Amino acid sequence: MRVPGLRITMWCMRRIMLIIEYDGSAYVGWQVQPNGLSVQQVMENAIRRLTGEDIRVRGASRTDSGVHARGQVAVFDTKSRIPSGKFSAAINSRLPDDVTVRESRQVCASFDPRRHAKCKQYTYRLSNSLARPAIGRKYIWHVKRHLDVARMQEAAGMLVGTHDFTSLANNERRHEENTRTITRSEILARETEITYIVEGRSFLYNMVRNIVGLLVDVGAGRFKPADVPRILATRDRACAGQGAPALGLCLEWIRY
Amino acid sequence: MRVPGLRITMWCMRRIMLIIEYDGSAYVGWQVQPNGLSVQQVMENAIRRLTGEDIRVRGASRTDSGVHARGQVAVFDTKSRIPSGKFSAAINSRLPDDVTVRESRQVCASFDPRRHAKCKQYTYRLSNSLARPAIGRKYIWHVKRHLDVARMQEAAGMLVGTHDFTSLANNERRHEENTRTITRSEILARETEITYIVEGRSFLYNMVRNIVGLLVDVGAGRFKPADVPRILATRDRACAGQGAPALGLCLEWIRY
Repeated sequence: MRVPGLRITMWCMRRIMLIIEYDGSAYVGWQVQPNGLSVQQVMENAIRRLTGEDIRVRGASRTDSGVHARGQVAVFDTKSRIPSGKFSAAINSRLPDDVTVRESRQVCASFDPRRHAKCKQYTYRLSNSLARPAIGRKYIWHVKRHLDVARMQEAAGMLVGTHDFTSLANNERRHEENTRTITRSEILARETEITYIVEGRSFLYNMVRNIVGLLVDVGAGRFKPADVPRILATRDRACAGQGAPALGLCLEWIRY
Repeated sequence: MRVPGLRITMWCMRRIMLIIEYDGSAYVGWQVQPNGLSVQQVMENAIRRLTGEDIRVRGASRTDSGVHARGQVAVFDTKSRIPSGKFSAAINSRLPDDVTVRESRQVCASFDPRRHAKCKQYTYRLSNSLARPAIGRKYIWHVKRHLDVARMQEAAGMLVGTHDFTSLANNERRHEENTRTITRSEILARETEITYIVEGRSFLYNMVRNIVGLLVDVGAGRFKPADVPRILATRDRACAGQGAPALGLCLEWIRY
């Protein structure tokens, strides 16, 4: 004997939110690309194998090729009966060892991980030593030239606030859309390791890596901290130096 | 015109000390083994290619297969004219990216990295969470069952001092040689990551990994902290639980 309403309940659509950690070394980035394997694709494959549905996974942040994440947020819609908290373990057993779901839970059907993000934190790790690092070498940029941490700290602090970041974004043309607000911009140093921490609601393309490139140029003496507002004012990408490589960058968390 | 004495000076034998960092994931351990590639072998190959001499490299600690080091100390004798401080960069350019020489300097000809060691620090990292870690997964042991950090801290503290560690050593038979002194034994916890820090002059075979296995059993409730002295008193390896896997262990530094 089946209660007719029960079947309808079982098949109702739910939106599931995932908090995802990945080592981006082997991937072309979060988003599906024609030129290689993306984290999104690996996630979709795992969930399709689990639920049998042709689901799409939408992430909050399009991390680039080689960039890592501890707290990428993504959603998918499913009719499966798996309890929302059980998705993490069930998906993990179908994922390669460089991607892991830290948490899964049901969210409201209108939740949009990209548009509803209030704040994101990225970190960028540098090893400032003559010898390249061996342990954790996939997660840290090795910079040989001596960096003056105090100057980097001073320059980092100048980025807090609302600025036009055209000079620090790649492929951004219209000035009016390149204004972003940074709520935290800080350099921490411990022995030979330097970590840059930055928080804001959204960032332009390659913006964090270009900021790190600029801070390294300040630390190495190519620019002075006082040059930072001047470089922002030029609104010209060519005025700042090269961006930092992908491997040191990590999306730490997203707050809603 | 050559000054005769100069040639003799150039050829005099020097002992060079190296501080070596390595990601042990791909190696059978420090020491040369018949069954695979060792870090010692990789170091000897690099230095032989550099100086053209048939040198031997002797390390302070025989780290096991899969164990990492940030501060392995090793020496070799050379007649080459390379300035002692320049060896690190010259050797590094001949090493794979999972091994790096952090520092090189001349030491006195009688310096023995193993016998003269006064204190060594090892760390062991655990990830205590339901989801396995993705970032840095080669350097951390994933323990799913919930661990009580306070109990682990209490048990760790009981190991400080001079004890017979037969119960926590593999392949050690004669009790009289199994006494060791631990000067620091501490558990640090930050979010889901638990780090065990241990310091002492020398350790028995697999001793640190067996200590960590015991501390995890205490944290999971299989043993009480008060069982630690009882287990040591039995002098029986079978009384303690399984040892921890290699990947979480790292030789941090050696003091002379």
